[in-house]
Amino acid sequence: MGTIFLSEFVGSMLLLLLGGGVVANALLAKTKGNGQGFLFINWGWGLAVFAGVLASYASGGHINPAVTVGLLANGVDEMGGEPVSVGLVLVYFAGQLLGAMAGAGLMWLTYKKHFDTDTDPSLKLATFSTAPEIRSPFWNVLTEVVGTFVLVFVVIAAGKFTEHAGGEGPANLGWLGALGVALLVVAIGISLGGPTGYAINPTRDLGPRIMHAILPIPGKRDSDWGYAWVPVVGPLIGGVLAGLLALVLLP
Amino acid sequence: MGTIFLSEFVGSMLLLLLGGGVVANALLAKTKGNGQGFLFINWGWGLAVFAGVLASYASGGHINPAVTVGLLANGVDEMGGEPVSVGLVLVYFAGQLLGAMAGAGLMWLTYKKHFDTDTDPSLKLATFSTAPEIRSPFWNVLTEVVGTFVLVFVVIAAGKFTEHAGGEGPANLGWLGALGVALLVVAIGISLGGPTGYAINPTRDLGPRIMHAILPIPGKRDSDWGYAWVPVVGPLIGGVLAGLLALVLLP
Amino acid sequence: MGTIFLSEFVGSMLLLLLGGGVVANALLAKTKGNGQGFLFINWGWGLAVFAGVLASYASGGHINPAVTVGLLANGVDEMGGEPVSVGLVLVYFAGQLLGAMAGAGLMWLTYKKHFDTDTDPSLKLATFSTAPEIRSPFWNVLTEVVGTFVLVFVVIAAGKFTEHAGGEGPANLGWLGALGVALLVVAIGISLGGPTGYAINPTRDLGPRIMHAILPIPGKRDSDWGYAWVPVVGPLIGGVLAGLLALVLLP
Amino acid sequence: MGTIFLSEFVGSMLLLLLGGGVVANALLAKTKGNGQGFLFINWGWGLAVFAGVLASYASGGHINPAVTVGLLANGVDEMGGEPVSVGLVLVYFAGQLLGAMAGAGLMWLTYKKHFDTDTDPSLKLATFSTAPEIRSPFWNVLTEVVGTFVLVFVVIAAGKFTEHAGGEGPANLGWLGALGVALLVVAIGISLGGPTGYAINPTRDLGPRIMHAILPIPGKRDSDWGYAWVPVVGPLIGGVLAGLLALVLLP
Repeated sequence: MGTIFLSEFVGSMLLLLLGGGVVANALLAKTKGNGQGFLFINWGWGLAVFAGVLASYASGGHINPAVTVGLLANGVDEMGGEPVSVGLVLVYFAGQLLGAMAGAGLMWLTYKKHFDTDTDPSLKLATFSTAPEIRSPFWNVLTEVVGTFVLVFVVIAAGKFTEHAGGEGPANLGWLGALGVALLVVAIGISLGGPTGYAINPTRDLGPRIMHAILPIPGKRDSDWGYAWVPVVGPLIGGVLAGLLALVLLP
Repeated sequence: MGTIFLSEFVGSMLLLLLGGGVVANALLAKTKGNGQGFLFINWGWGLAVFAGVLASYASGGHINPAVTVGLLANGVDEMGGEPVSVGLVLVYFAGQLLGAMAGAGLMWLTYKKHFDTDTDPSLKLATFSTAPEIRSPFWNVLTEVVGTFVLVFVVIAAGKFTEHAGGEGPANLGWLGALGVALLVVAIGISLGGPTGYAINPTRDLGPRIMHAILPIPGKRDSDWGYAWVPVVGPLIGGVLAGLLALVLLP
Repeated sequence: MGTIFLSEFVGSMLLLLLGGGVVANALLAKTKGNGQGFLFINWGWGLAVFAGVLASYASGGHINPAVTVGLLANGVDEMGGEPVSVGLVLVYFAGQLLGAMAGAGLMWLTYKKHFDTDTDPSLKLATFSTAPEIRSPFWNVLTEVVGTFVLVFVVIAAGKFTEHAGGEGPANLGWLGALGVALLVVAIGISLGGPTGYAINPTRDLGPRIMHAILPIPGKRDSDWGYAWVPVVGPLIGGVLAGLLALVLLP
Repeated sequence: MGTIFLSEFVGSMLLLLLGGGVVANALLAKTKGNGQGFLFINWGWGLAVFAGVLASYASGGHINPAVTVGLLANGVDEMGGEPVSVGLVLVYFAGQLLGAMAGAGLMWLTYKKHFDTDTDPSLKLATFSTAPEIRSPFWNVLTEVVGTFVLVFVVIAAGKFTEHAGGEGPANLGWLGALGVALLVVAIGISLGGPTGYAINPTRDLGPRIMHAILPIPGKRDSDWGYAWVPVVGPLIGGVLAGLLALVLLP
């Protein structure tokens, strides 16, 4: 269990260090990437997932509670080599949340001098957590449900694809499997990230939001707690839906 | 046959959800990706194919009638594990068309609040279906023929490449095969998408056009039915040509 | 021999159709990709190589005389399954040149209505052949030598890498091998394409230049024959150098 | 030992030729890529690593002293097939430094006519070595530590991933392994390159800085030796930290 906690912690830490980093690079003042657009951010987040999945192989590379609940809804009976239990799920969640918080903290240290510049407080918050372009709880949740559904459903499908083809497994693991998930996240960002900025992962949003509230960032705004439930609830619903529908839709 | 229908339905749904989504993100008002250019759109469509092919492994991942007719012209005697018959082909087409319609509907829901904004009606239509930059039926059909020819011909070639090299198959399936097709679609979009916006797939254009006509989109224009035959006829001709010429040109 | 001719012809045709296409899309008036920059063009050419290599597996996917002479200098004793001879080399060159001409012709047809628009004649020529930003024969040749050296040297190295690792071969063929070469061409374009536009392939430049001279393009300029020798001589020197130095530098 | 020296020399030469090249293309006057942004530069450096790793298979593709010291800290007992010794480490370092110098020289020759144009002297220096956006030694070192940590830690993790999955090795070598490292460098550049321009490699920065001091570049500025220790010290600390922490954090 300690191995699983550590694995999810390290993977989630890398995810938020790199994922938060690309937003910091694009939005904070006086960076090399200042003013780069949404495609830059999409590649950054996709490749952040690439690094995170590679480093969390021991736990199966979830680094996202929506993936964990999606696999549970899909009926897996073990995760990371351990039999499913309430305790195991809580270990996954704890590693994911604390890792995301650690990653956001490291990102802040990496860009410390740029957080100290005079940048719009909402842009500083955006390097930690998502915000919708048009605030509308129902539709924002729906967008997060759809995005997360695509992530979890296609990840399950890719695993079944290899079995279906009679493949052995390892050929699709390592660099290649991590690349596949990374490109899927690039796809979701490019295509479904327009309205809400695609949290598609509860701890990716909540962990950094907690850090934004805690850290001594000069000239920061409030942490927009009124929106905080949306990128938690939407992805969890989307993950569960994907796990259940995969039972029906994928042979 | 039910498995094949479902497989093509789900794959085509993901294709149009993500493919329509990138255009919505780039063109509709107040999105995170507003104003992103053609390269962004090319990556979005390519990776939409990536997700669609991964999820439709059970039917061989056609998600495009031009691929289906191309393989028929190339002389396959089974598709998705079933012997070729008129009924089977109609099942493929039905899954592709209805899946494309469902995907366009989901895309609209995902971007609902942005479709409700005051955006140019032609841009709203463009999130569903293609339109040429210079309207000229003969040359527009020719452009779609060439683009689809490249898609179907190279897909057939890649399959033969593996055989030729003595490879076993699974090594080129799963994540890697889906990535290959995705990059091919990125290539076609970047290089041959300039005149018509590269439908290169009849149901990718027709399904969403039907949805555009049906859905209650505020301030929408007509669905440009006068052009609708071009991205159906062009890709079908291109697919058949590719299947036939592959018999002659590929050892 | 007929198979090898056809294979190099088809691969080179796809290379120039897609490679010329991305430049047409970026430079000609009224296209969807008009105004897209150098990164767009780099991805387009890289993925054009991807498609070309996939379709020319039967001849080993040279589609470039610099690769052919590089392998000869490296001491291969067969190419495409045939023993090396003067006749075989001429078959490779013929397939490459005629295929490049055919591809440029198809590209022109695909963008016909856009070639008929009022675009700067030098931009129309640029969709066919390369031109340096600062004209200086010695330095332009040197740039083409360096770019082609990198292409041929790393392709030879990648083949030796697999042997060195005890790999079997097919794992690095098919989609993956074509992707590797494609990314190498993206690399060369991004990094070494700045001065001359990276022909790095004699027939890629000469074939289309002949077509530019022949085709009835409205408002075209002369075909800049004074520069035509540079992207032929530079790549041939670079390819031979790479083949020879690989003997010394790669174990 | 000669093989290892040559391998690291050639790989580092390609790294700096292509990596310096993309900056030259983006920053020097009158190039095809002039004015391209940070994403262009990130792809260029990532793919420069791709080429460099492919060509240095015989020594394990370090081409970076931070990787070498990271593996030592991780406890490897051989590198490139040779038992670890002080002499071996010095051979690695020598190949890396001299190769980086040679690559920077070749890059200068490739862009010779553009270095001769009237470009801002600081931009000319930037094609050789990194510079921070906000000069602050402590934070600049910290940023380089974090970026290099991610590189070395994830490279070690990816190797363990394959073992963990029961994979054989070769499947993750060749094109695929080089691609994985390349994408990791793209990730680090996009996400952590904002403050200092991500040297994440001592010889990548020091070798070209020496060449900048030596080469007869018209209108060049001083080589900013005051900053030169930062991209040497930071990456070495980051590499060692990664090697040590991988012992604790990766099963």
